[in-house]
Amino acid sequence: MPVITMELGKVSIEQKRELVTKVTELTAGVTGVPKEAFIVLIKENDAESTGFGGELLSDKRAKMAAEKKVGGNYE
Amino acid sequence: MPVITMELGKVSIEQKRELVTKVTELTAGVTGVPKEAFIVLIKENDAESTGFGGELLSDKRAKMAAEKKVGGNYE
Amino acid sequence: MPVITMELGKVSIEQKRELVTKVTELTAGVTGVPKEAFIVLIKENDAESTGFGGELLSDKRAKMAAEKKVGGNYE
Amino acid sequence: MPVITMELGKVSIEQKRELVTKVTELTAGVTGVPKEAFIVLIKENDAESTGFGGELLSDKRAKMAAEKKVGGNYE
Amino acid sequence: MPVITMELGKVSIEQKRELVTKVTELTAGVTGVPKEAFIVLIKENDAESTGFGGELLSDKRAKMAAEKKVGGNYE
Amino acid sequence: MPVITMELGKVSIEQKRELVTKVTELTAGVTGVPKEAFIVLIKENDAESTGFGGELLSDKRAKMAAEKKVGGNYE
Repeated sequence: MPVITMELGKVSIEQKRELVTKVTELTAGVTGVPKEAFIVLIKENDAESTGFGGELLSDKRAKMAAEKKVGGNYE
Repeated sequence: MPVITMELGKVSIEQKRELVTKVTELTAGVTGVPKEAFIVLIKENDAESTGFGGELLSDKRAKMAAEKKVGGNYE
Repeated sequence: MPVITMELGKVSIEQKRELVTKVTELTAGVTGVPKEAFIVLIKENDAESTGFGGELLSDKRAKMAAEKKVGGNYE
Repeated sequence: MPVITMELGKVSIEQKRELVTKVTELTAGVTGVPKEAFIVLIKENDAESTGFGGELLSDKRAKMAAEKKVGGNYE
Repeated sequence: MPVITMELGKVSIEQKRELVTKVTELTAGVTGVPKEAFIVLIKENDAESTGFGGELLSDKRAKMAAEKKVGGNYE
Repeated sequence: MPVITMELGKVSIEQKRELVTKVTELTAGVTGVPKEAFIVLIKENDAESTGFGGELLSDKRAKMAAEKKVGGNYE
């Protein structure tokens, strides 16, 4: 019956496969619930739709990129 | 105030219409809460983003399709 | 794989049994997904933790009860 | 640690930015939890995937538009 | 139709009332959706059931309290 | 920013600690997102509030216990 919802950013299908396999295995091991009963839902969130510390993630990243550029030729 | 979130695979608009109408009616009937107060959110999940029994649903389906093919010309 | 989360107020175990049985049956019928794959999570929310139209549900209910009382000895 | 999930319709990036900033500020102020700990997830739902009062939101809107039209040249 | 779910720690009913009122008002103002359509669900999470940065929140707090104590009789 | 919600049955604080630590570590490793950004919410669901395959989990367990008893003094 366990349902694990993973709110993440963009992830590749390889990463999704690894997450589903390993998170199910790990949680089944810790809880003793058989693997077959597990559902994992992976939700990909745009940086423009995600707030972190009161700021859009896309804005945070834009600022960090700009600061790096000022730091000299894309350090 | 009831909020019903339905995590499903791909569904057509006709299926969505039927689900919203009937699930609201059914739950209103059981709980006695008036229909007008209900919100239903239908979430469509890709098979590549869904884990079932520790495996990506898309991988499970690919395996099942391959087994059928081996079983003799698309049984 | 379908996961249906029902955010409701207080419900009895009989109501929960009826909801789980009938919502699963209905959704399985509409989507064609086998009943065995369904998970239903019933979440009971206190009126004090639920906002409806910008007001705590518990406050709304207290107001409605007071208005009834004023209307003539518990109409 | 607070996680605020906002299930909305379509919103622009400007609206997302304003919501993330102000909802975080407001909730941090009320709870005393520092802004840096907040995550806000904005989920945009299609009207075709949303039920309100037992009806698809897209159907409700289509009906309202039709009623307006009948009322005399797009009142 | 908007549904706002707030995953928080322990909050008083006064804080819940303030959050429901102000978050609904703010979001209605930004989105133009009428206040009456809003549902807010406040979920209180125990520190023992919440992970932050890979550690139980209850463990983090216990460590911080111990460090303070060592720092000189409850600085 | 990742938020992982784990809908489980009853779990001990030791199990919660292990899940939070290992699921965060695993997901941080797969996604490359730093551990510090992770929030894990563990939700414990009563068997009476959980439907599995169209039946209350509590009813399923009661049936299984009864079948075992008939099978000869608690095989």
